[in-house]
Amino acid sequence: MPRSSFAGSLSTPKVDVVIDTGNPFFNLTVDGFLKIGTVAATRVAAEETYHIVKSGSLKHQNFEHSLKKMCKEGAYWGTVAGVYVGMEYGMERIRGTRDWKNAMLGGVLTGAIISVASKGKGDKIVTDAITGGAIATAAEFLNYLT
Amino acid sequence: MPRSSFAGSLSTPKVDVVIDTGNPFFNLTVDGFLKIGTVAATRVAAEETYHIVKSGSLKHQNFEHSLKKMCKEGAYWGTVAGVYVGMEYGMERIRGTRDWKNAMLGGVLTGAIISVASKGKGDKIVTDAITGGAIATAAEFLNYLT
Repeated sequence: MPRSSFAGSLSTPKVDVVIDTGNPFFNLTVDGFLKIGTVAATRVAAEETYHIVKSGSLKHQNFEHSLKKMCKEGAYWGTVAGVYVGMEYGMERIRGTRDWKNAMLGGVLTGAIISVASKGKGDKIVTDAITGGAIATAAEFLNYLT
Repeated sequence: MPRSSFAGSLSTPKVDVVIDTGNPFFNLTVDGFLKIGTVAATRVAAEETYHIVKSGSLKHQNFEHSLKKMCKEGAYWGTVAGVYVGMEYGMERIRGTRDWKNAMLGGVLTGAIISVASKGKGDKIVTDAITGGAIATAAEFLNYLT
């Protein structure tokens, strides 16, 4: 059962979301979607807040635009993360080990899937897959460093 | 003393690079630079190899171009990673705790520094800082998931 727990501001309120789909693969995917989606939505919120503070005016139209952008980016990042987490879990099950190669292969598959889903063609799918693998490997290495 | 250890192909040769600068801050930075720089260079190598295999011809000029691109991208990713790892370590020392907020603050600082270094101005620096923080937070969360 995944527990999505994170703290959203400097005064540290806690948000706990617990969803059990009854399948470890989907649990991980849902958890990844929720967590990373929230991070992306928060990023947009922070950026839009900066622009509002800077321009000094809050228009209704801007607010609606910001909200839409939060949902859109949140859903996109969340989907990428969900697919990646699911793929990495799948790799672990197939290969039977936990190491950085799971991250790499998961990233390659995720890159290819997202590329196909966003109507990438031919070369673009391959280069997206390679880039996905590289980003996942880099994130995995950073993880051991810090 | 950082030990940069990774396996580079499916037959798993091991490369160990050990550099001790005598300072834990610089050790981490150098380690981050080497590891992530290598990942980025490998990504370019894989992409270029795909293009060569596809076009079916290997020209001397292409090879030189690929090597230059590997060095350039490797140095760029490596620098970003080195700055980030150093910043996160600094955050840990300043805040005295290890949690995801170190990653977020480290990412924000790294985004701002890289933005200034690549001649970003005004708004660009702020949005790069926000994006840096979001990416670092997302990577940190993924780390707990998988």
